[in-house]
Amino acid sequence: MGRYVFGVDVGGTTVKMGLFDVEGNLLDKWEIPTRTENGGEKILPDIAESITAKMAGKKISKEEVEGVGLGAPGPIDAAGTVYGAVNLGWGTFSISDTLSGLVGMKVKAGNDANVAALGEMWKGGGRGCRNMVAVTLGTGVGGGIIVNGGILTGACGAGGEIGHIHVEDNETEVCGCGNTGCLEEYASATGVVRLARRMLQASDEPSVLREKPEDRISAKSVFDAVKEGDALAVKIAGQFGEYLGKGLAVIACVVNPELFVIGGGVSKAGEVLFDYIRPHFERTVFKGCKDAKFALATLGNDAGIYGAAKLVLE
Amino acid sequence: MGRYVFGVDVGGTTVKMGLFDVEGNLLDKWEIPTRTENGGEKILPDIAESITAKMAGKKISKEEVEGVGLGAPGPIDAAGTVYGAVNLGWGTFSISDTLSGLVGMKVKAGNDANVAALGEMWKGGGRGCRNMVAVTLGTGVGGGIIVNGGILTGACGAGGEIGHIHVEDNETEVCGCGNTGCLEEYASATGVVRLARRMLQASDEPSVLREKPEDRISAKSVFDAVKEGDALAVKIAGQFGEYLGKGLAVIACVVNPELFVIGGGVSKAGEVLFDYIRPHFERTVFKGCKDAKFALATLGNDAGIYGAAKLVLE
Repeated sequence: MGRYVFGVDVGGTTVKMGLFDVEGNLLDKWEIPTRTENGGEKILPDIAESITAKMAGKKISKEEVEGVGLGAPGPIDAAGTVYGAVNLGWGTFSISDTLSGLVGMKVKAGNDANVAALGEMWKGGGRGCRNMVAVTLGTGVGGGIIVNGGILTGACGAGGEIGHIHVEDNETEVCGCGNTGCLEEYASATGVVRLARRMLQASDEPSVLREKPEDRISAKSVFDAVKEGDALAVKIAGQFGEYLGKGLAVIACVVNPELFVIGGGVSKAGEVLFDYIRPHFERTVFKGCKDAKFALATLGNDAGIYGAAKLVLE
Repeated sequence: MGRYVFGVDVGGTTVKMGLFDVEGNLLDKWEIPTRTENGGEKILPDIAESITAKMAGKKISKEEVEGVGLGAPGPIDAAGTVYGAVNLGWGTFSISDTLSGLVGMKVKAGNDANVAALGEMWKGGGRGCRNMVAVTLGTGVGGGIIVNGGILTGACGAGGEIGHIHVEDNETEVCGCGNTGCLEEYASATGVVRLARRMLQASDEPSVLREKPEDRISAKSVFDAVKEGDALAVKIAGQFGEYLGKGLAVIACVVNPELFVIGGGVSKAGEVLFDYIRPHFERTVFKGCKDAKFALATLGNDAGIYGAAKLVLE
């Protein structure tokens, strides 16, 4: 086994890259721009060039590198084939074969949310777990499911798409996915703002949230108000927690995790989130699955590079 | 590798047993009673004795047997430890170690619903699949989830407990698990009868279902009436299909299966079930998971012994 491993997290604007030792210590971290033009044809060559330059700079030979792991936004199967990644301009092709051909080393690839979950299991909030669910409450709601220490990829790389669990029949606004009533419409950062806007419009109840223009309200301002004891904000958090707690209870019945690791921008509110999620989780979950714990993600934006590196070492 | 493998399916009244060759051909099948008295202490010795007698009768040596697989009703982890099985009188102990000590051969054990799912994947309605969900619509609703060809056991053997997904907030009748609004309350055989009873009481709409006493209505009579075009029965099937279709859509977002295999008593109605499940599935499922197919289980009560045998061969 080599001494080093690279972890690569491809985003729509930047590619995050990390050099790790095989114990998972991050030795170096850097970024390059994501060039999405012409079907994203430059993305993998740019990554290969950057890795090769890094190895030259540090006098690391190929024999010393275990391989390169990569996470990208899109359905990617266990063999490393991506089935279209809209944000990158990519169609269907084998990431593993293409990048491996460019760098001359073993390459593994996976969906970015799944890979980030693996990172949190390896070195983050899920350390020591073999069965966990990572939930990312960002612009959308992403998920990654770890079963027996490995990513649940599913039949076509769409395992863990928990943001699109249908949770509300009476929704008229359309989710980014084209459906209505997805968990993401209530539990993402934009979802919390949606709930806040509706709650503010539904009554004249006083709230610190009325002190700023409605278009300035964010998930952060809602949870800041919750911490100040603002009654209306507490109601908004209650709705958020009911949708998310019931959603996670369903997930628990399906995959029976030890732990939910909650990350993404909304999670910056901290453990106060759990006060709103847990009651609904506990009320609706099957008893045999009720011992699942909740923890905050700890790796932030680095979860992707950690998980990508771990992908190679599995 | 040996030439033979035993599959054992422990039920509350009988233990089903099968002798297979390692290609999965069922060579012999028999049953013994399940003696649940005294904490079910005789169950494994009875099984061991029956296997030993069968081997003697057929002049099969231990060297020719790959091992014994066993499915039982209760949470059983990947190492073969059961955490209490109420119907059998069992507490917590290692089935694998105990039975292996009695028969002198390798033993693997798993939850009966999960093991039956493995059987359907190996030789039944899910043949050729690596990612599937088996749904058993019987007295309750059971589930077994296959990921990459193996059982999703979960943290404590409660993976695939899909009957207890919370699907209805406005339910007052309590499920067997102690919660209210579980999928099982609407999609099991007794669940279909519950929906029928409520629908019949809610109006005076004529229906062939009114021709027999209410306590004689069964899931079978409801779906027989559906096939005759009875409008009220069609509405009942519609409610059943909405609960189940939406529930399976959620499961698809979590584990992204290729296939749902539907078994159990209710599934005897045949593919007409899919006409009621599919529209709600397709309406609410994430697009990336929408290609999941539906098939009927084909092994019936033998799914458990097939899956138990396969457990040994994994």
